[in-house]
Amino acid sequence: MNISSDIRNLISQRRKGYTLPAPFYLSPEILELDIATIFGSHWIFVAVEPDIPEPGDYVRVELGHNSVIIVRDDDMNVKAFHNVCRHRGSALCDEQKGSVGNIVCPYHQWTYDLTGKLIYNEHMGEDFDKNDHNLKPVHVGNIAGLIFICLADEPPADFEDMKRAMEPYITPHRLADCKIILQENIVENGNWKLTMENNRECYHCVANHPELLNSMYEFGFGYQPSPENADKVQEFRDLIVAETERWESCGLPSEEIDLLDSRATAYRTQRLPLIRAGESQTMDSKVASQKLLGDLTQRNLGGLSFWTQPNSWHHFMSDHIVTFSALPIDATHTALRTTWLVHKDAVEGVDYDIKKVTEVWRATNKQDSNLVERTQRGVKSDHYEPGPYSPYTEELVEKFTNWYIQRLEAAMESSASVIPIKACR
Amino acid sequence: MNISSDIRNLISQRRKGYTLPAPFYLSPEILELDIATIFGSHWIFVAVEPDIPEPGDYVRVELGHNSVIIVRDDDMNVKAFHNVCRHRGSALCDEQKGSVGNIVCPYHQWTYDLTGKLIYNEHMGEDFDKNDHNLKPVHVGNIAGLIFICLADEPPADFEDMKRAMEPYITPHRLADCKIILQENIVENGNWKLTMENNRECYHCVANHPELLNSMYEFGFGYQPSPENADKVQEFRDLIVAETERWESCGLPSEEIDLLDSRATAYRTQRLPLIRAGESQTMDSKVASQKLLGDLTQRNLGGLSFWTQPNSWHHFMSDHIVTFSALPIDATHTALRTTWLVHKDAVEGVDYDIKKVTEVWRATNKQDSNLVERTQRGVKSDHYEPGPYSPYTEELVEKFTNWYIQRLEAAMESSASVIPIKACR
Amino acid sequence: MNISSDIRNLISQRRKGYTLPAPFYLSPEILELDIATIFGSHWIFVAVEPDIPEPGDYVRVELGHNSVIIVRDDDMNVKAFHNVCRHRGSALCDEQKGSVGNIVCPYHQWTYDLTGKLIYNEHMGEDFDKNDHNLKPVHVGNIAGLIFICLADEPPADFEDMKRAMEPYITPHRLADCKIILQENIVENGNWKLTMENNRECYHCVANHPELLNSMYEFGFGYQPSPENADKVQEFRDLIVAETERWESCGLPSEEIDLLDSRATAYRTQRLPLIRAGESQTMDSKVASQKLLGDLTQRNLGGLSFWTQPNSWHHFMSDHIVTFSALPIDATHTALRTTWLVHKDAVEGVDYDIKKVTEVWRATNKQDSNLVERTQRGVKSDHYEPGPYSPYTEELVEKFTNWYIQRLEAAMESSASVIPIKACR
Repeated sequence: MNISSDIRNLISQRRKGYTLPAPFYLSPEILELDIATIFGSHWIFVAVEPDIPEPGDYVRVELGHNSVIIVRDDDMNVKAFHNVCRHRGSALCDEQKGSVGNIVCPYHQWTYDLTGKLIYNEHMGEDFDKNDHNLKPVHVGNIAGLIFICLADEPPADFEDMKRAMEPYITPHRLADCKIILQENIVENGNWKLTMENNRECYHCVANHPELLNSMYEFGFGYQPSPENADKVQEFRDLIVAETERWESCGLPSEEIDLLDSRATAYRTQRLPLIRAGESQTMDSKVASQKLLGDLTQRNLGGLSFWTQPNSWHHFMSDHIVTFSALPIDATHTALRTTWLVHKDAVEGVDYDIKKVTEVWRATNKQDSNLVERTQRGVKSDHYEPGPYSPYTEELVEKFTNWYIQRLEAAMESSASVIPIKACR
Repeated sequence: MNISSDIRNLISQRRKGYTLPAPFYLSPEILELDIATIFGSHWIFVAVEPDIPEPGDYVRVELGHNSVIIVRDDDMNVKAFHNVCRHRGSALCDEQKGSVGNIVCPYHQWTYDLTGKLIYNEHMGEDFDKNDHNLKPVHVGNIAGLIFICLADEPPADFEDMKRAMEPYITPHRLADCKIILQENIVENGNWKLTMENNRECYHCVANHPELLNSMYEFGFGYQPSPENADKVQEFRDLIVAETERWESCGLPSEEIDLLDSRATAYRTQRLPLIRAGESQTMDSKVASQKLLGDLTQRNLGGLSFWTQPNSWHHFMSDHIVTFSALPIDATHTALRTTWLVHKDAVEGVDYDIKKVTEVWRATNKQDSNLVERTQRGVKSDHYEPGPYSPYTEELVEKFTNWYIQRLEAAMESSASVIPIKACR
Repeated sequence: MNISSDIRNLISQRRKGYTLPAPFYLSPEILELDIATIFGSHWIFVAVEPDIPEPGDYVRVELGHNSVIIVRDDDMNVKAFHNVCRHRGSALCDEQKGSVGNIVCPYHQWTYDLTGKLIYNEHMGEDFDKNDHNLKPVHVGNIAGLIFICLADEPPADFEDMKRAMEPYITPHRLADCKIILQENIVENGNWKLTMENNRECYHCVANHPELLNSMYEFGFGYQPSPENADKVQEFRDLIVAETERWESCGLPSEEIDLLDSRATAYRTQRLPLIRAGESQTMDSKVASQKLLGDLTQRNLGGLSFWTQPNSWHHFMSDHIVTFSALPIDATHTALRTTWLVHKDAVEGVDYDIKKVTEVWRATNKQDSNLVERTQRGVKSDHYEPGPYSPYTEELVEKFTNWYIQRLEAAMESSASVIPIKACR
């Protein structure tokens, strides 16, 4: 592929601290570039281990026009393959989730085992070598139960750093010992980058997210300092120090790590206190599941958040976990999959109420979806021009946007071989 | 922007007296050009004063992908702005019509007053200058209550000529003292130029518009002269002379003005007699509202029509007004907004019946919409070729088409700066 | 038109024995090329004589964006015209099928007779010559009641060879003396070439078409020879020899002709035995209409199949006929029209039951449509690569694909004049 000179110019002209030029939110050509360079060459969060608890369980994921199946094999390993038969190209798995013995193409019954090996087909003649026609594998990364895939032949090596850093944070919540109680698929009417920019700030929370504000500190996501708020800010800072010390003394790493920039596999984490009961992102900020996760014994652990570039965010509380994966459909539509998990032994109606666990983020998702759509409507005007991010409340948005531009620049440098967009697509 | 050589060739090859080559009706690239040059650089009719009677009232208008809000400010001035927040680009106003105190962006509460001035926002730091982030204004023109906008930095100056010429015609109908009794939004499945071509002739009326023919003279919109029709034509001509004299003696300018060609702001007007009762474009050609407009005292004033390039037509009768605005949605869809108005003091059920006022043009719009759609279906064939306009009944279509080509030629000449189509759109 | 160098490269790189590179199934640009070169320059099956039994009967056919009407004129000739008025380009006929006296454009009443001659219009002036504005004709070919059209100015001459060869096969079934009992229009969510590839093999039948298998021999459409199937294969071969001899002795040509390749007008035919009762493609393989076709007196005539490049297949049994026409809508949608016919004197409820005649192919069409859609979903992945056709069961698929590539190559050679894709489409 060649990155057109129009796009190269747009990349080089991006102004730091400002939203992107309109074509980055509108152009099908740039979306193709995003799929090739961002979603095709980086580690993408797509599922959790409880999506596929048993051998043969699979989950299907669409990254733009690319379909991938993530499967648990008979040795309990997580594998991923392109969802494309090596015979005539038929899609193999139709359901978003399912369970199979082998992967059998419904068209002509070519049959692959759970490691992707072609083990059976008819009529192909003596010269046909099955070994040349195994499913095409996709790289899998696993951080304490969070499953990432990378479509590139050579995935970014810095995933291992992220894994090493993040496992101590996440492991105590025992994601693999959770069960999914709800999975919601929303199609947002906006470019995936608007979904991500919206996620990376809470400047919009006060006016838009009444449910979320039931558990969230006003100052948790930035503010402009002023004489009026100086006392409250200091109070909040002291609280973070105290709570972080308390949590770490319980063996729960909680300090902020911010590596959202200047690397291929970029992320941020922090455990933050919640208001009122301080236990969970619920309407009353108390736990919504009485069966705490893993070996946790304390309820008021605030919320451990984990954000990754380009497409995920996660909240781990003492009682439940919520994970989010945003994947482009086309230039103006994004699939957002949200997964709510509680301890696998928690009993509905006894230990937890599904509505209580899920209502805050279901409401928040809906509100965010509206904000993304309205921004998409605005930026398509010829008279839109990039606007300034707040230096106080939109720093993480700038880091996302900056990371995105960096990654395109890196792709431009390595060019042809790295970005194999198909002719004529 | 560059107008591609393909399009330049198409423009230069247009044959006078014939419909346009197919790409002008089909091509998304040419639609972009239309939005930039025709709708982006000319005066476009979009609303009437009664759309926004009170301070804070707004109406939202979409010109292709460009969204504009027309607002009445606290000093009763009509203002227009791009419907795009200067922060992250969010659309500001969602409803087609509404009323606001200030214009508050729902995303992060950036707040603009009704003159477009940014008056409030949070978290932007000390260096942020509100004055650099006011809403982007759009030029407004007002002809006796008909509201036009122009998106260009420097609108065509000849609007003032049209205003000067037309105000004496329209003012007696006192549009600003009317109220809207119905507003209909139709999406026509055709290119906006097919909507306009259809509007500019009545050759199709006999076979397609039974309701409209209840009040319309057969010869009002052209005919091929023949020995058979010579007497009736002479009769009609004599009638026009007599009626025009009568109307003008009442202080109602009625003579034809035809400036549909060879200028940026092009238009045509004429007051024409109606058949039978001769009062109004209704099923029985009698007035449908007993409360006559303005200071008018006579019912049989025929119909004053006002046509503008590129996108509007209007009919003023003694009792009611109908205005039409056609705006492109994309290459093959057009939004037609029709507005029916009567005197603001007329009382429904007493002075007028809403069905009687609106039924002729509601039926006619529907019939026209079908004709536009069928033409769109036809011209997409590779075997369509431009066909001849009738020299007798389609002169005004030729003037529209010719004006359109002239304006593209003018844009080609002034090229780069005038036509800022965004890269990668 | 110019075939872009990208497409030229794709054409030249096609690997024999393998499915096509993805852009051939996805690219709107290649679909335009297909419409211009394949559907615009070859003989396309579109209808049967019983579609238009009486003078004035017409059937409308859409080949991509090109609309054609096939009409029976007053002398009982079959004519075809572009469905585009020569005045303003309006589509003339709206219904898929209908009956008219003359062809009158609903827009301005331009009136054409059934031979396409413009016979009436108003207002066009003295200089207007009607003879210059007749409907644009389309070539018609007729093989024993199967109607083909060709949009090219100079259709491939080898149609006459096919006609001469095929008439003796088809004529005994007396298509023109049949009546249509059901016509089904399916939109398949796939490129037309996937519809055709699916039609050209029965490798997928065992797992997907239980209804069809009620009458079809396992070995009829290829198999890999093996010691295990040797006896059954020999049995089947002996049966074909015996049955062919029996049918030919009744005056029914039945020998295979395979000219699917290396010519513009390419086709294949063979009469094949059916299993069990051997009479018809029905659930019990018995005739579904008691009134046999034409002068046929024997029920167990197996099935005479006739396949044409690029877009049709047909099955003639002793009691009924099924014909199929596949036409592209756009790059990823195909219209499949299926027509079931029985003897025109057969009486429903007495001689035949409509469900019994149609249920096998209605079910089979639905199953095939799903297979086409799943393949379309698969090939859009960047990680799809052309896969191998079976040398035993997918030979006819290879012949289709090979023919297609040959025809594009032929178009490339004759280039500019032959492939008039419109600028800016």
